[in-house]
Amino acid sequence: MIELLAWLGTLVFAAAGALKGVEKGFDLLGVLVLALVTAVGGGSIRDVLVGVLPPSALRDEGLLLSTLLVGLLVFRFHRRALRLSRLLYYLDTLGLGLFAALGAEKALSAGLGPLGVGIAGALSGVGGGVLRDVLSGEVPGILYRAGDLYASAAFLGALLFYALHGLYPEGALVLGAAATFLLRVFGRRLGLSLPTPR
Amino acid sequence: MIELLAWLGTLVFAAAGALKGVEKGFDLLGVLVLALVTAVGGGSIRDVLVGVLPPSALRDEGLLLSTLLVGLLVFRFHRRALRLSRLLYYLDTLGLGLFAALGAEKALSAGLGPLGVGIAGALSGVGGGVLRDVLSGEVPGILYRAGDLYASAAFLGALLFYALHGLYPEGALVLGAAATFLLRVFGRRLGLSLPTPR
Amino acid sequence: MIELLAWLGTLVFAAAGALKGVEKGFDLLGVLVLALVTAVGGGSIRDVLVGVLPPSALRDEGLLLSTLLVGLLVFRFHRRALRLSRLLYYLDTLGLGLFAALGAEKALSAGLGPLGVGIAGALSGVGGGVLRDVLSGEVPGILYRAGDLYASAAFLGALLFYALHGLYPEGALVLGAAATFLLRVFGRRLGLSLPTPR
Repeated sequence: MIELLAWLGTLVFAAAGALKGVEKGFDLLGVLVLALVTAVGGGSIRDVLVGVLPPSALRDEGLLLSTLLVGLLVFRFHRRALRLSRLLYYLDTLGLGLFAALGAEKALSAGLGPLGVGIAGALSGVGGGVLRDVLSGEVPGILYRAGDLYASAAFLGALLFYALHGLYPEGALVLGAAATFLLRVFGRRLGLSLPTPR
Repeated sequence: MIELLAWLGTLVFAAAGALKGVEKGFDLLGVLVLALVTAVGGGSIRDVLVGVLPPSALRDEGLLLSTLLVGLLVFRFHRRALRLSRLLYYLDTLGLGLFAALGAEKALSAGLGPLGVGIAGALSGVGGGVLRDVLSGEVPGILYRAGDLYASAAFLGALLFYALHGLYPEGALVLGAAATFLLRVFGRRLGLSLPTPR
Repeated sequence: MIELLAWLGTLVFAAAGALKGVEKGFDLLGVLVLALVTAVGGGSIRDVLVGVLPPSALRDEGLLLSTLLVGLLVFRFHRRALRLSRLLYYLDTLGLGLFAALGAEKALSAGLGPLGVGIAGALSGVGGGVLRDVLSGEVPGILYRAGDLYASAAFLGALLFYALHGLYPEGALVLGAAATFLLRVFGRRLGLSLPTPR
């Protein structure tokens, strides 16, 4: 079940990356590169950092193929894909939460402490989007979009996983992912916002 | 023979990186950094991903020295280097093909499947140029130059290597590199172009 | 003693990163990310390259925590932090020298030769700042600030460490770090400058 959701999350990340490539006017290769980088970049950075080499995504031909297929579909039908933006928002947030929790689990296995787990978990969730933004010539959105709790929600979800994994080994993953999801979705509804310098 | 050509390709990549630094008005250090990053960046990213650490380029003092010397020469004689652009185009494409095929071979040894090999091979060929563009504050050319089959030619060359390596272990490297070379050079002459979003 | 100074250098790097985030108008998360990336990015890139995984910074909870605390303090009191810029200049240069020499030592243990050690040492010192600049949407300052001997001072300090480590195993670290420090500080006073292309 969790694996299925993570796979779905990867594909939604791929769609978001491909849409950015379309928006930028990149060619087919550029759109596919952004789909791939957004989908598997965060997990691959995390795998490099924890020493899992080659990164698991590179070894998963089914995942690579479906990522490229999603990129192709978005390239061809990008106007229709844009109309799904509301649905994509929720699926993207679900992917974020799952990647952060699963990344935290991997970081824990590599022997990291709470902050290391929080950072590696957040990086699993947002690293692909950061790479996508940098390759697109943009400042990564996570650094300044104070009203969208994205990377901070992933960090807190990963920290929650760390706090709970000793007590509830099975529930920690679900609760960490859920915390990220709820923090982002309800954070926006409640108008929560990160402070900016004065 | 292949090693000699790959070494030549590395130096041409170094020259292309140094020229970008000159064009940007960087200082001597900036020009040498771009020479180095362009020449050994793609292979080093690939080595990190397949777990060959330290990356082989960092262990090759002769290669590092000649890369820096090429950077110095281009810094000093950049006007003359620019006049060689036609020759550099062909040598650069040769380097691209060889890096992609040799990178594909390394990815294969690391146990990757066809898409993983194609991606790691292409990354070996284009990763250095992508790093150079990002450090120069530019959007990587491979993402939007639809009329220049560069990264896609490297990807297809690496895939061809994968397809052939079982049948012709010795010829696969040459044929993969040649495919990349021919696809780029004749693709341009024939006016081939990647689609862009409509 | 050296460890204490390196720890101080890390915190000064964190402050410099956080100040850049404040200057860019990033939110709290962006400021903390830049603090973290600037402080531990260079050493982490070096650890990835020499195969020390997870990077030592990610395993050092005390360092991560103090980096984030410095980021928080700078976020809150950034006007006062700016007034310390002169002191920060010297501490930053001290950090640069120590990171370069310590990074060179790690690269030597990984079996690299002189140029590999020089490059990995320089990267330890400047890699975090390069990542910070790229994430901020800027061209890395080390590439074009000809009048500020920064990366080149780190490279030469790392090379000096390499040259001396066989003769004076204990003194090489101190002398390498001192060389970087003196080269930057007196280079500026003497008006030394790297050449730019003509």
